[in-house]
Amino acid sequence: MKDLLGMSREEFNNFMNSFDTVVTDCDGVLWMGMDEIPGAVKVMTKFKEMGKKIFYVTNNSTKTRVGFLDKFKKLGFNTNASEVICTSYLAAQYISDHADTNKKVYVIGSEGLAAELQTAGLKCFGIGPDPLGMDIGEFTSKFSIEQDVGAVVVGFDEHFSYPKMMKAASYLYNKSTVFVGTNTDEQFPLKKAGVVMPGTGALVRAVETCANRKAFVVGKPEAYLREVLMKEENITPSRTLMIGDRCNTDILLGKRCGFQTLMVLSGVTSLEEVHEWQQSKDPALTQLVPDFYSETLGLLHSKIQ
Amino acid sequence: MKDLLGMSREEFNNFMNSFDTVVTDCDGVLWMGMDEIPGAVKVMTKFKEMGKKIFYVTNNSTKTRVGFLDKFKKLGFNTNASEVICTSYLAAQYISDHADTNKKVYVIGSEGLAAELQTAGLKCFGIGPDPLGMDIGEFTSKFSIEQDVGAVVVGFDEHFSYPKMMKAASYLYNKSTVFVGTNTDEQFPLKKAGVVMPGTGALVRAVETCANRKAFVVGKPEAYLREVLMKEENITPSRTLMIGDRCNTDILLGKRCGFQTLMVLSGVTSLEEVHEWQQSKDPALTQLVPDFYSETLGLLHSKIQ
Repeated sequence: MKDLLGMSREEFNNFMNSFDTVVTDCDGVLWMGMDEIPGAVKVMTKFKEMGKKIFYVTNNSTKTRVGFLDKFKKLGFNTNASEVICTSYLAAQYISDHADTNKKVYVIGSEGLAAELQTAGLKCFGIGPDPLGMDIGEFTSKFSIEQDVGAVVVGFDEHFSYPKMMKAASYLYNKSTVFVGTNTDEQFPLKKAGVVMPGTGALVRAVETCANRKAFVVGKPEAYLREVLMKEENITPSRTLMIGDRCNTDILLGKRCGFQTLMVLSGVTSLEEVHEWQQSKDPALTQLVPDFYSETLGLLHSKIQ
Repeated sequence: MKDLLGMSREEFNNFMNSFDTVVTDCDGVLWMGMDEIPGAVKVMTKFKEMGKKIFYVTNNSTKTRVGFLDKFKKLGFNTNASEVICTSYLAAQYISDHADTNKKVYVIGSEGLAAELQTAGLKCFGIGPDPLGMDIGEFTSKFSIEQDVGAVVVGFDEHFSYPKMMKAASYLYNKSTVFVGTNTDEQFPLKKAGVVMPGTGALVRAVETCANRKAFVVGKPEAYLREVLMKEENITPSRTLMIGDRCNTDILLGKRCGFQTLMVLSGVTSLEEVHEWQQSKDPALTQLVPDFYSETLGLLHSKIQ
């Protein structure tokens, strides 16, 4: 693992010439909440000026690619929708490639997820509140399922409910129904002391359990993004740099994809943790060690010619 | 594995004298839906007349012990509440023994579960519908949790919702909060073609995921029942007979408890499956083979003196 900021000019230039695609995580690398991490805009702009392809990766499934642009623009990033790789987009790609696209998609998720699926030409239903509203016996006896459902997707859904689980499990009873989970993050970062916001992973595990099937997960650290970027964007994995602040999602994703990996210290993982993993004999830990690290992304600006 | 119906009189009498406690599953052994499996009442009555202690075991968490008696009475079983070992009772026992009983229990579950906890002297809250009812951002900013919560229990709850998950995960953030799941059954048996009713296991897995903790599960096939029956009823495991129709729950429970095990063929597991497991080298399968089997429980009546 090499410190980019400690590299000689020649070494650093070799590094810069070793990749022509940048895939970067957002929170903890580019910004914290609604604040830019200083210098991130300048470095991303520099990468673009140098002709490198840029992709912004997020496990967030609640918006469309276009829907995410607002925040990028507000913070000064010059970003196009085609550079945003959110899990709603990845889910739409996977379903388009693997399900019967004449059939409908049952969506546990947000309006943004449904809109991204629709952008890909898929028919969706299931969005919004779906409470029981009556006695469970009555509900079950009245319960009927739609025909022509080709896929079930589970993303973040604050209206998650027992009827939604029952519908998903029933559609998935037909083994030819494609089953996609956007990501398996267990929790969101704590916002208030002692308040835990369940992540999409809890919803995916619930549906997997009652459907007795495993979901195909499109988000980090699963490597499906590699397939999409190779097919749609013609990237070369060995000439791609993955930047992230969380080794167990971002760096692991990079490793699984055959990318070069750069950890920044402005987010979750600390250098001390990585030093511990380097000493470990457990391959699950040693594979989390990135190729490169930097205090922050912004600090690279002074080294870039 | 011996066929009880094929035993000589002496062999069968030795079997009958080898146990003084009977623990039996209900559905598939005593009844199917609302119909007695012929002879079950007569045999259970006979066991009782012979002075054997009887316990009826169910993973159902939706009623109190008393609440289950209706069905037993309707079908002709002479049963007392103290003979019914439902998971609401087991959960109440576990929480009483392991949590601070001055504190409250947050219940994801039914009124029956809460009532059984209250019977044990525990204070409960959380029962009934709990939908989001507003924007998620507003919900999160208004969200506050109760103080003095000593335990979280997850049983079957048709009102399962995101706010319930958020509350459970937040109470469980305090590692001293006791965490109980009634059972991990993934699905209920199909009632209508293609309609899958999610079981309590799906709710338990969802909460486990977002709380990043494992629940203590009191239902079959976990062996907690052994501890309760030894402490409260003074049973001797080696002189206890477990009767069931599902080897991966009932017989596995019996094995884990050190009970003798009897499979009846009136329910889920078939003799052919067990014969396959007998040939297997996988200990996970061979441990599912019962000591004894019988076509039905009722057919034993003719052999009992």
